[in-house]
Amino acid sequence: MCHLGYLNAGRPVVLPMVHARVGETLYIHGSTGSGPMLAAKASTGLPVCVTVTVVDGLVLARAAVHHSVNYRSVVIVGTAHLVEDPQLKMAVLQALVDHVVPGRAADSRLPDTRELAATGVLGLDLVEVSAKVRAGGPVDGPADTALPHWAGTVPLRLAAGAPIPAGDLDPAIPTPAYLASYLT
Amino acid sequence: MCHLGYLNAGRPVVLPMVHARVGETLYIHGSTGSGPMLAAKASTGLPVCVTVTVVDGLVLARAAVHHSVNYRSVVIVGTAHLVEDPQLKMAVLQALVDHVVPGRAADSRLPDTRELAATGVLGLDLVEVSAKVRAGGPVDGPADTALPHWAGTVPLRLAAGAPIPAGDLDPAIPTPAYLASYLT
Repeated sequence: MCHLGYLNAGRPVVLPMVHARVGETLYIHGSTGSGPMLAAKASTGLPVCVTVTVVDGLVLARAAVHHSVNYRSVVIVGTAHLVEDPQLKMAVLQALVDHVVPGRAADSRLPDTRELAATGVLGLDLVEVSAKVRAGGPVDGPADTALPHWAGTVPLRLAAGAPIPAGDLDPAIPTPAYLASYLT
Repeated sequence: MCHLGYLNAGRPVVLPMVHARVGETLYIHGSTGSGPMLAAKASTGLPVCVTVTVVDGLVLARAAVHHSVNYRSVVIVGTAHLVEDPQLKMAVLQALVDHVVPGRAADSRLPDTRELAATGVLGLDLVEVSAKVRAGGPVDGPADTALPHWAGTVPLRLAAGAPIPAGDLDPAIPTPAYLASYLT
């Protein structure tokens, strides 16, 4: 997932979103009545910043100021535009589903004309993109390494549990193969 | 962690940050030379949006458009101000360390005068705050529940691995008790 930053009445707003990349464009979506979609509709192009962050661990140094977080982040800035073409919108919505669960779009009911019309899609070309990575252990100054405080890292990762079938799922429908990796 | 949104030359920027709450104020910190701190210094108050998101799971509905994510998020908007008082800055830096690893601040070397001066701290009063939660299983329309697609949720959580001591850690220093929960 990502965090989308845009302006509402001149002030910054940051919202969690799901994104997908198709070629050299990043896409996000939402109800046509949501804040970002309304803001995009009211303008000819919406200045945005989309940031994706993955946290890999906590870094504990002896010195409080050298505590850190291991992470990978990407910051994309630019002007997002509403996608009007229904065919591209359909392709983007499938890419969004497949980005979250690869292989899922083909095993779902695709949007109908009404659903497509009620969904806003914003495209942001990947032109101004920066990545930042922090990895490895703590870095203390030479005067601090002899201090009696523990130092090191605590690894973190997003872990999945076993899939939980919907209460109304036909028991004859097995857990699909594309969810197998979540079962281990 | 949180994502901070602010304006740089009139355009939104979103950066991952660590935050801590002290009373009714949220604090973030960074080098005095970092973008947000420079922007705050150049103004009498920095319009910001701070968003905290915890992802709890993926929600797979039969219909592509009803796919969702289970999450808890908090969005705080307002005007942030630089903290100048060294005593408050010191308290905030301890709170930031303790927010990430409760109990750690007391087991670290606290900032000295030079480190305190090189660290910028921004305070944002918790006045305009909204929370949003999505939980539970997929919600498909009645016409879709008989479709042959699997439906349900995949639980997600941030999982910690066993702490990894720094390469130069004195082996006589044991893993501290406040990291015990990360060992299980």
